[in-house]
Amino acid sequence: MAGTLGSGVLMRVRVLVRPKAGILDPQGVAVEQALPALGFSGVTDVRIGRLIELEVDDASQVEEMCRKLLANPLVEDYEVQLLGEASGTAA
Amino acid sequence: MAGTLGSGVLMRVRVLVRPKAGILDPQGVAVEQALPALGFSGVTDVRIGRLIELEVDDASQVEEMCRKLLANPLVEDYEVQLLGEASGTAA
Repeated sequence: MAGTLGSGVLMRVRVLVRPKAGILDPQGVAVEQALPALGFSGVTDVRIGRLIELEVDDASQVEEMCRKLLANPLVEDYEVQLLGEASGTAA
Repeated sequence: MAGTLGSGVLMRVRVLVRPKAGILDPQGVAVEQALPALGFSGVTDVRIGRLIELEVDDASQVEEMCRKLLANPLVEDYEVQLLGEASGTAA
């Protein structure tokens, strides 16, 4: 098992997953084209990715989770943000 | 048109869209259930939403964009983060 024993304190972690620069982002294009019809102008470079938030007892695992499950490294970049201790504690 | 004239300076804005508390998040459940098979333990409360990043010349429009297009207020919450000036400038 790749998992290691955690500290007993749950950490709140946020992962931002974005389409890599240069990769077509059809959702972003659709939003950018829809905005003028709704009366919004001056919006450019819309990119849409995934927001993943979780609680984990060993935050050092999260990079590996990104590579193995949360992001597609061929077409996506990811960024891990530690948000601090969660309100609960691990068993 | 609802759009107003901007300052001529493009702002980089990030919008975090999350399923509301209490709303079932099937993607988050799927990830949480897949992690143990990959060797990751101690992960709970996985929630998956959308990450939207854009450049806009009038950042005060973004809240209204969220209500009208970027988020579904029935089942999602959103959070707007101003990231500062973009490298380019608006026409």
